[in-house]
Amino acid sequence: MAKEVTSRAENYSQWYNDLALKADLAEQSAVRGCMVIKPYGYAIWEKMQSVLDGMFKQTGVQNAYFPLFIPKSFFSREAEHVAGFAKECAVVTHHRLMNDPDGKGVVVDPEAKLEEELIVRPTSETIIWSTYKNWITSWRDLPILCNQWCNVVRWEMRTRLFLRTAEFLWQEGHTAHATSQEAEAKANEMVQVYAKFAREVMALPVIVGHKSPNERFAGALDTLTIEAMMQDGKALQAGTSHFLGQNFAKSFDVQFTNKEGKQEYVWATSWGVSTRLMGALIMAHGDDNGLVLPPALAPIQIVMVPIFKTDEEHQAILDKMYAIKKQLEALGHSVKVDDRDTLRPGFKFAEWELKGVPVRLAMGPRDLENGTVEVARRDNLTKETVSVDGLDQHIHNLLDDIQKGIYDKAFAFREQNVEKCDDWEEFKAKIQTGKFLLCHWDGTVETEQKIKDETKATIRCIPIDSFVCEEEGKDIYSGKPSKQRVVFAISY
Amino acid sequence: MAKEVTSRAENYSQWYNDLALKADLAEQSAVRGCMVIKPYGYAIWEKMQSVLDGMFKQTGVQNAYFPLFIPKSFFSREAEHVAGFAKECAVVTHHRLMNDPDGKGVVVDPEAKLEEELIVRPTSETIIWSTYKNWITSWRDLPILCNQWCNVVRWEMRTRLFLRTAEFLWQEGHTAHATSQEAEAKANEMVQVYAKFAREVMALPVIVGHKSPNERFAGALDTLTIEAMMQDGKALQAGTSHFLGQNFAKSFDVQFTNKEGKQEYVWATSWGVSTRLMGALIMAHGDDNGLVLPPALAPIQIVMVPIFKTDEEHQAILDKMYAIKKQLEALGHSVKVDDRDTLRPGFKFAEWELKGVPVRLAMGPRDLENGTVEVARRDNLTKETVSVDGLDQHIHNLLDDIQKGIYDKAFAFREQNVEKCDDWEEFKAKIQTGKFLLCHWDGTVETEQKIKDETKATIRCIPIDSFVCEEEGKDIYSGKPSKQRVVFAISY
Repeated sequence: MAKEVTSRAENYSQWYNDLALKADLAEQSAVRGCMVIKPYGYAIWEKMQSVLDGMFKQTGVQNAYFPLFIPKSFFSREAEHVAGFAKECAVVTHHRLMNDPDGKGVVVDPEAKLEEELIVRPTSETIIWSTYKNWITSWRDLPILCNQWCNVVRWEMRTRLFLRTAEFLWQEGHTAHATSQEAEAKANEMVQVYAKFAREVMALPVIVGHKSPNERFAGALDTLTIEAMMQDGKALQAGTSHFLGQNFAKSFDVQFTNKEGKQEYVWATSWGVSTRLMGALIMAHGDDNGLVLPPALAPIQIVMVPIFKTDEEHQAILDKMYAIKKQLEALGHSVKVDDRDTLRPGFKFAEWELKGVPVRLAMGPRDLENGTVEVARRDNLTKETVSVDGLDQHIHNLLDDIQKGIYDKAFAFREQNVEKCDDWEEFKAKIQTGKFLLCHWDGTVETEQKIKDETKATIRCIPIDSFVCEEEGKDIYSGKPSKQRVVFAISY
Repeated sequence: MAKEVTSRAENYSQWYNDLALKADLAEQSAVRGCMVIKPYGYAIWEKMQSVLDGMFKQTGVQNAYFPLFIPKSFFSREAEHVAGFAKECAVVTHHRLMNDPDGKGVVVDPEAKLEEELIVRPTSETIIWSTYKNWITSWRDLPILCNQWCNVVRWEMRTRLFLRTAEFLWQEGHTAHATSQEAEAKANEMVQVYAKFAREVMALPVIVGHKSPNERFAGALDTLTIEAMMQDGKALQAGTSHFLGQNFAKSFDVQFTNKEGKQEYVWATSWGVSTRLMGALIMAHGDDNGLVLPPALAPIQIVMVPIFKTDEEHQAILDKMYAIKKQLEALGHSVKVDDRDTLRPGFKFAEWELKGVPVRLAMGPRDLENGTVEVARRDNLTKETVSVDGLDQHIHNLLDDIQKGIYDKAFAFREQNVEKCDDWEEFKAKIQTGKFLLCHWDGTVETEQKIKDETKATIRCIPIDSFVCEEEGKDIYSGKPSKQRVVFAISY
């Protein structure tokens, strides 16, 4: 095999990096903390975008585009927001370069200093609400349901491909409503869109829930989240949806005349998912041979590898393969015939396994004679010999099975690694072994913080699905009364 | 009519701004020179992106994503490039804000100064070629055919919505090839993709040609362009494709081993179109009532307006309209029923005219009774009464007619305003009245510059289609021998 992948058991973190790099998804760039998303990785992201975008539009959301830069003063307006966000970010201070008077190269022109510094957006609530002010006068202008697909920058000191990068790609939805109820319903609707996408398209069995006040988005009254378990038992926050109350409307003075003719502040939500989902995809499903892609997101769903000795055999098998390709494409599938004649089949098998292609078809001279083909599944590495007659429908169904199989496997893994826990000593031991623990919590920030300080574990969410958690009990740390269990885990 | 549009005759520039603003395409943001693209404008841009992206992929191009930031030193590497580009740009110098020690708000943390400043990309040749260096070893790694859809920033002092903004959206293709011939062929292929898109989708009769050396992209050996005539007779450069030779490969030391085992520098192209195309769309086809959108790019192709007195009539007409909508959607068209009951039909007519919707259907109680509908074309403002039977197919064909009609009108306008000119005094007079002049040119930068200084006119291109220009003659300014005519115009 051309490219060695570190096993998960040996070094999980290195395994992750190997997959991202060697499957040609992404790499570090010359700019610290910024990644290059390579064509194969970007093709997966495009599929995610395309499905999500369609789901958003079905809920009445429209796309728009707001500026990359935010005036520094905007960050001071929403007090909580500035505390949560404004610290580590890219600051534009000048607008011109000039030839270095002392020699070669270019330097910043000191004459071209901006009057007010501009911040490269870490998120766009402030610039968008300053815009919405001009769009909203009356209840007739509401709701506004906008989304943008864009890049954002948060200066991170320690970065990892997809999971934490200085620049990343995402979508951010920003909606404006006449009532609190409508805004809360929208925040909930959007987290359910994310959950459906994660489960049905990414094959990711996420838990939906509320964030504890401590883990909320800066400026939100409520943050809803989807949380996924990775194969090391750690949690990955895969998407969030915020009910922002009237905080941003008040900061930017966005009022509307309601049906009774009175002035009111507008109610807001925001919600986003990012290229972090690529990290979730790698870590949730990959194995020691490489990526395992759900068919719904695989840029290539079926790869065909001819096995031959002579050029004649090669051509005859390729002819058959191109015919099969046509049939599969007619059913809406993406197919690649690997017709490179300088590489051995074994090398090709390993390469496509590394890249996570769901189905591999191999055909040799004897297959050609018998009208058969070898069908290999990437997810469980099983093989079978199948007749070429009716192959298209067989593969069509197989892809559905694989999509379901990948979800079921991840779901079973999570079920094995979620437990109720009511003992603090047990908690401290188990949380380090990669478990999600369902524990009673007294609802205070203090207890949450103490647990975090002692174990690094955080409340991932207060679930609204996946587990029945509402029951009386005592807080695992403080022993104070609790009304429901919450999900504790160590997270990315 | 709710929103007044300045007429073209009164003030062409104000007319353009009125259309961009009042048709809800875009507006200026709180950040100088940066625009907000509103949902209706963005929906048109999305259609452009979708069609172009498909055309690129058909030529074998894949999408990828490269960093927003470029280290300052990269700009010094390609000498011509730095001269052409590095001057007006957004410079990131710091990576942290902090609370103002003297009071409210936030200030830049002086401790968080970057060792090397980062430039927000004005274009990505440098960062991409620094990346390609790692991707290319042998001829087997070539060609590389990447495109990215992204935002770029060029600090402009005088901005106009879509035409010239500090931040804009675009696509930039960057390809790497083993031979000069292959790279030149690719640059040519891509300008032809742009021309096809402009003509068939935007209904824009563009001229394809080479830029004169003076107007070439910084660092290119050849720049191909598509040039369009606006309704004031000025030229708008709508897309460019560059043959970059080995300049960037040499600057970033990108070599490959050729089939003979020798080291060679890689050959490059780059090509791009931007949200400037939105400006071209407005200015090429709009009239004094508002936008005129080609059906291929209209977010709403057909709008239906009910005309009624009673609620009963309204409901009966809406029921019929929703039935028609279903039929038209089955044919792949986007349809809106304007069911707002608080606005008069006349107001709605004006609003949809302003927004350039290609076809408007109006139906009143008598139409309902007679099984007819009034069909109005936006492009030529004609109306006809049509039977509801077979309406779907009628509209389907009508949309084709409109697409063609808009192109034909723009083509006829251009034909009227292009002339051969062989006299310098005549040139000076006519060029100011909004003409494209086909003139002999001696091929020198000096003559081109003098003509520009005296008249503001530039060589838009040396055509390779649209006009037969190859003939012997004398330069219009210098009188020196010339081998072909070129297109002179005043441009945006």
